[in-house]
Amino acid sequence: MRTLYLIGMGPGGPEYLTTQAIEALRKVDVFFILEKQGRGKDALAEARLRILDAWRGPGNYRVVKAPSPPRDRATEDYLDVVADWHARKAEILADLIAEHLSEGEAGGVLVWGDPALYDSSISILRKLQDDGRVQIALQVIPAVSSLHLLAARHAIPLHAIGGELLVTTARRLLAGAARGHDAVAVMLDSNAAFNTIDPEDFDIYWGAYLGTEHEIVASGPLREVGPALAETVAREKQRHGWILDIYLLRRGGAKPSIDPVEAGR
Amino acid sequence: MRTLYLIGMGPGGPEYLTTQAIEALRKVDVFFILEKQGRGKDALAEARLRILDAWRGPGNYRVVKAPSPPRDRATEDYLDVVADWHARKAEILADLIAEHLSEGEAGGVLVWGDPALYDSSISILRKLQDDGRVQIALQVIPAVSSLHLLAARHAIPLHAIGGELLVTTARRLLAGAARGHDAVAVMLDSNAAFNTIDPEDFDIYWGAYLGTEHEIVASGPLREVGPALAETVAREKQRHGWILDIYLLRRGGAKPSIDPVEAGR
Repeated sequence: MRTLYLIGMGPGGPEYLTTQAIEALRKVDVFFILEKQGRGKDALAEARLRILDAWRGPGNYRVVKAPSPPRDRATEDYLDVVADWHARKAEILADLIAEHLSEGEAGGVLVWGDPALYDSSISILRKLQDDGRVQIALQVIPAVSSLHLLAARHAIPLHAIGGELLVTTARRLLAGAARGHDAVAVMLDSNAAFNTIDPEDFDIYWGAYLGTEHEIVASGPLREVGPALAETVAREKQRHGWILDIYLLRRGGAKPSIDPVEAGR
Repeated sequence: MRTLYLIGMGPGGPEYLTTQAIEALRKVDVFFILEKQGRGKDALAEARLRILDAWRGPGNYRVVKAPSPPRDRATEDYLDVVADWHARKAEILADLIAEHLSEGEAGGVLVWGDPALYDSSISILRKLQDDGRVQIALQVIPAVSSLHLLAARHAIPLHAIGGELLVTTARRLLAGAARGHDAVAVMLDSNAAFNTIDPEDFDIYWGAYLGTEHEIVASGPLREVGPALAETVAREKQRHGWILDIYLLRRGGAKPSIDPVEAGR
């Protein structure tokens, strides 16, 4: 039997790995990396290699890389586009596993953040298992999500006392997902969707490149700080070639005191 | 200046701590533990001590304990009851800090799971800061939430592709919080609230004592497995004197294949 470890790396730096994740890393014979293409995207692959350096050192493991297929950005139905993209990633991963992972060996896939939130690896591998394309034992290693790092950086709870939290996407935020909710965490943005909705009485707690040397955080009433934050998003994206940001919108209740926006670090 | 580290322990076992959390543990001079009272609750305090043993060893740190005040279970307004409970915990913590944490020292509070999800420590300490009751620099160390461990154990994503996740409480589930949502994570239950709502077409992915030696997981269509799972909750609670469980209700979309309920471990 072959094992595949889906290992949550947490938000970025090697210090966010759990000791369980480090132990799993050390059992892996072959790491599979699908490299995103485009300016700045090599930073993502480098972060993975830095983590391997930090916790494996130079050793008897292999790294197998392939280009991650681009997502079709045509104006078709979003879910169809994503399904097609996943199918192409699944094909590549199935081929890599068949070619490079021998009987009795352990493979590893390093996942940004936690594997269960807005990452396709679990779905892709479960589908390959269900279709009989790969015979592997799948082990998922959980991690600190950037959601929790965001809250820690701002020293705030993610929800009001006894309240609830909606975790959603920028696409859904634009479609009105925040309506009726007092705490909304938004992922998969990078285009400052927060600045195009009705700010109502939301406060925003924002962070980008969390857990890396480029980390920036800022907070304030959305109505006041939204435009400046949107400029920050554009500027940082320009500078690095990419941005990974996340934010929490909160309102009402016994909200914590917040400082005015400090987007310049 | 004095520093207080709020350190997320993750779901239980020492292996879920990040190396950042371990590093923070090692800076702490005094750990503050508010001990919950009642049968089985000493298991919680013991888990904290096990983590200290694992990552500090016998050393030059102090542990200061006080009984956690009981929550008033009268039928008053829930939020008033919780606010009163937090106020009493805040008083105790402020006194402990004043008495036991000297200038230049670092204090530590070990928090189950992640400090930003359904834990009162951040709110309590921010309030003490805002009221001028304690002068401390607050450092929050994020952790793996039991939510992510639950998903890892079941090897499922927490939401559908491009979808969203509602994180809520059993109290809110009973009040209809799941309506209109396709992925709902429920915390603070322990009384099998899932078995008293309309099961609709939800699948349940359940886990208790996650990350400990008593861990149990089970899954299946809520309509079919709900009653058996409710019996499991009652039986385990009886056996241990307490239960910490969490579950995800999911429906629709490209849901992963699931196995029938396996509640016997």
